[in-house]
Amino acid sequence: YGLPLKSASGGSPLKNDIAVIYALRPCVAAAVYTQNKVKGAPIIVTERHLKDSKAQAIVANSGNANTCNANGIEIAEKVCEITAAELNIKKEDVIVASTGVIGQPLTMTPFEEHLPALCASLTEFGSLEACSAIMTTDTTKKQAAVEFTLNGKPCRIGGIAKGSGMINPNMATMLCFITTDVSINDEMLKLALSEAANVTFNRVCVDGDTSTNDMATIMASGAAGNVEIISENEDYEVFFGGLYAVMTNLAREMARDGEGATKLIECLVVNAPDTLTAHVISKSVISSSLVKTAIFAADANWGRILCAIGYADAQFDIDKVSVDLISQAGRIRVCENGSGIEFSEGKAHNILLEDEITIYIDVNSQGEGEAVAWGCDLSYDYIKINAEYRT
Amino acid sequence: YGLPLKSASGGSPLKNDIAVIYALRPCVAAAVYTQNKVKGAPIIVTERHLKDSKAQAIVANSGNANTCNANGIEIAEKVCEITAAELNIKKEDVIVASTGVIGQPLTMTPFEEHLPALCASLTEFGSLEACSAIMTTDTTKKQAAVEFTLNGKPCRIGGIAKGSGMINPNMATMLCFITTDVSINDEMLKLALSEAANVTFNRVCVDGDTSTNDMATIMASGAAGNVEIISENEDYEVFFGGLYAVMTNLAREMARDGEGATKLIECLVVNAPDTLTAHVISKSVISSSLVKTAIFAADANWGRILCAIGYADAQFDIDKVSVDLISQAGRIRVCENGSGIEFSEGKAHNILLEDEITIYIDVNSQGEGEAVAWGCDLSYDYIKINAEYRT
Repeated sequence: YGLPLKSASGGSPLKNDIAVIYALRPCVAAAVYTQNKVKGAPIIVTERHLKDSKAQAIVANSGNANTCNANGIEIAEKVCEITAAELNIKKEDVIVASTGVIGQPLTMTPFEEHLPALCASLTEFGSLEACSAIMTTDTTKKQAAVEFTLNGKPCRIGGIAKGSGMINPNMATMLCFITTDVSINDEMLKLALSEAANVTFNRVCVDGDTSTNDMATIMASGAAGNVEIISENEDYEVFFGGLYAVMTNLAREMARDGEGATKLIECLVVNAPDTLTAHVISKSVISSSLVKTAIFAADANWGRILCAIGYADAQFDIDKVSVDLISQAGRIRVCENGSGIEFSEGKAHNILLEDEITIYIDVNSQGEGEAVAWGCDLSYDYIKINAEYRT
Repeated sequence: YGLPLKSASGGSPLKNDIAVIYALRPCVAAAVYTQNKVKGAPIIVTERHLKDSKAQAIVANSGNANTCNANGIEIAEKVCEITAAELNIKKEDVIVASTGVIGQPLTMTPFEEHLPALCASLTEFGSLEACSAIMTTDTTKKQAAVEFTLNGKPCRIGGIAKGSGMINPNMATMLCFITTDVSINDEMLKLALSEAANVTFNRVCVDGDTSTNDMATIMASGAAGNVEIISENEDYEVFFGGLYAVMTNLAREMARDGEGATKLIECLVVNAPDTLTAHVISKSVISSSLVKTAIFAADANWGRILCAIGYADAQFDIDKVSVDLISQAGRIRVCENGSGIEFSEGKAHNILLEDEITIYIDVNSQGEGEAVAWGCDLSYDYIKINAEYRT
C-alpha cells in the first residue's frame, strides 16, 4: 500500500472477524450507502458520524450484519466509542460497518475483548489482514492500489473490499474502504466517490439482490502535500482516474468472486443512443439468469443474450444490434442486425471455456453511448451456498 | 371442456409438436403479447391477422420459436395458409404461435407433412392432446375451465397453456389459448383479456427473463346465445370472473412447473398504500434468488424476505411491515415492525417443507392495496436445465 494508514484485525479464535483501519491524521471522508429501505444499524451510525465529512478510523466486523436488531444503533455507537477511546480520537470520527447474517442480536463481548489489543497492534502492513477480517464466504482477498503525481507530489489511493459470497449473501454484501493521501475537500471527495461508484460498484450484479449493509467509504488524509483539490480541475481528473482504476479493479474482483462463480462476465455496450441506454442494456444482459447459465455451460446461446437486450427498458432499434463473444481464446460474432448468423459453434465454445468472457454489444445507433457491467456465471454452487441452512 | 371447438395435435414421430384448434364458427378474438423488443415472427403475423378482431383457428408448434430467422414471417404466413386451406377458412382468421429455440431456421416440411391429417382428425376431445403438443420441457399439462350462466344460458371458458420449462427457456416461454362460447364484442373481449393478464400471467415470475414469443389469445364464438356483452355491465363482471379464474389457475400451474421448481410460492401483500405498491413488493419478493433458494432449503430466512421488500421500488414505511409464512402445515409470524421476532425455527421449517408456500406480507399502512404474485423456488435443477447444451 504505502498509505499513511495503519490497520489490523482480530476477533474470534475461528476467524479474524474485526478490522480496524486508522489514519495518523484526521481525514476528509465520504461514503455511499445501500439504497435498500432496510438499512443496517452501522449505515445509520456512519451516516451520522460523516455529517461533518471527517473521519480518522474505521471499525468493521464480519459474521453479523447488526441489522434489524432492536438495540443495533446503540451497539454500533458503543463499538465506535471503544475504538475511539483506544485510538484517542473522537467517537464521531469513527466509521462503523458490519457484514453477515441479519436479524441476529450482536453483543459487545467480542469488541470489548479484542478491540484494545487490536488498536494497540496497528501496523502499516496490516491491509491484507484487514482484508481477511471483513471476508465472510468470499474466496479471495480483494485489494487494489494506484500511485500517481499531483503538482509533482506522489499520491496514492488504496482500497480493500469484500464481495458477494457469504453466509447470508446479499444481506450485507459489499463493503469497501478506500484511503488516500491526496489533499481534497469534502465536496470534491464526495463527488468523486459517488461518480466512480456509479460506474464501478453499481455496475456489478451477482444475483440482483440489493443488500441492507452495502457501504463504500473513502478517507483522504492530505499527507501527500498536493495543492488541495477544490474544483473539477485537471488535478481532480487525475485523482478521479486513479480512484476509478482502484474501484474498477475491486468491482471486477467482486464479480469474479460472486457466489458459485466460475467465470467473470464483462458486458460492454457501445454505440447506444446515450450512456443511460448503454447502462440499462449492459445491466439487463449481465443480470439474466439464462445468459449466466449458458455461459456457465460455455454455450454460445446468443438468443438468450438478444432476448435480454430486447427486454431492457430502453429505446433503441433491436434490428441493428450485433453481438460478439470475446475472450483470450479469440473473438467471434454470433449475431448481426438482430438476427443469428452462421458461426463456428466449436470456436465459440472454446472462447467461452475461458474464465474471463466479454459480451460485446454494438447497438449501431447514431449515438456514442457506452457502458460496461460486470457479473458472473450461475452455477450449481450458487444454489448450494444459498440453500444451506443458516446454522 | 364442452367447448364448441375442436382440436388435435400431431407432428414428429418423437413428440406431438403441432397443435390445431378450430372453432365451428367465426369468433371474436383478442390477444396479448410479449413486451420484448425481439418478437417472434408468429407474434407479428398474429397481430396482423387479429387487426379485425376475428379468428377461427389456431396453429401452434413447439421445439422451434421461429424467431430471429430471416424468412420467419414468410414461414408463419405459409403455415396459416395451409391450415386455412385445410379448414376451408380465410388465412387471416388463423392465429399462429411457436415455442422453442430461437434463431434456428424453421422449414415448412413438418407442416406440409402433418397439417392435412391433423386438420382432418379434429375432435371435440382433443384438448389434452393439444396441451401436450405445445409443451417443451414442461412437466405437466396445464388446462383449466369454468362454467357459469349469463341470462340463464350456460356459458363456458376453457384454456390451455404452456409454461416455463423448455429447451431454451424464456426464449419462448408462455403460450396460452383460451376459448369461450360467450357472446361478447371485440372491445370488451380485449379489455377483459388484458385486465385479467395483468393480474394473472403478469404476476408470475420464474427467473425474471421476458420471452420473445409470449402470447395469450382468446376466441369467443357466441354459441352460448347470451345477450352480447358490449359494456362493462354485470354480465361483463361475471364473464371477467370466469376468465380470471381460468387464467389464475393456469398462472399458478405455470409457476408451480417453473424450471427445476419443487415448490409453488405465492406472495400475498396486504394493506399497502395502493395496489401498485402491493404489486411491486410482491414481484420483488417472488423474484429474489435469495428468497427462492432459502425456500428451496425450507429455511425461514426472513431477513432475505425483508431485504427484498426493502429494495422494492415503492414508497412505504418498512418499520411497520410484518411477514408470516403459511402452508398446509400451519402459519407462523417471523417478522414484525420490520424487525425479527422470536419464533420456532422448527415449526417454520415444517411449514416450509410443504410444496405450496404463501409469504404473507402486511405493510400496515393506511391504504388497502393488495396484490398477489406467484413464483417457485430455485433449485439445482434450474441450473441443470439451463446449463445443458442446446443440441
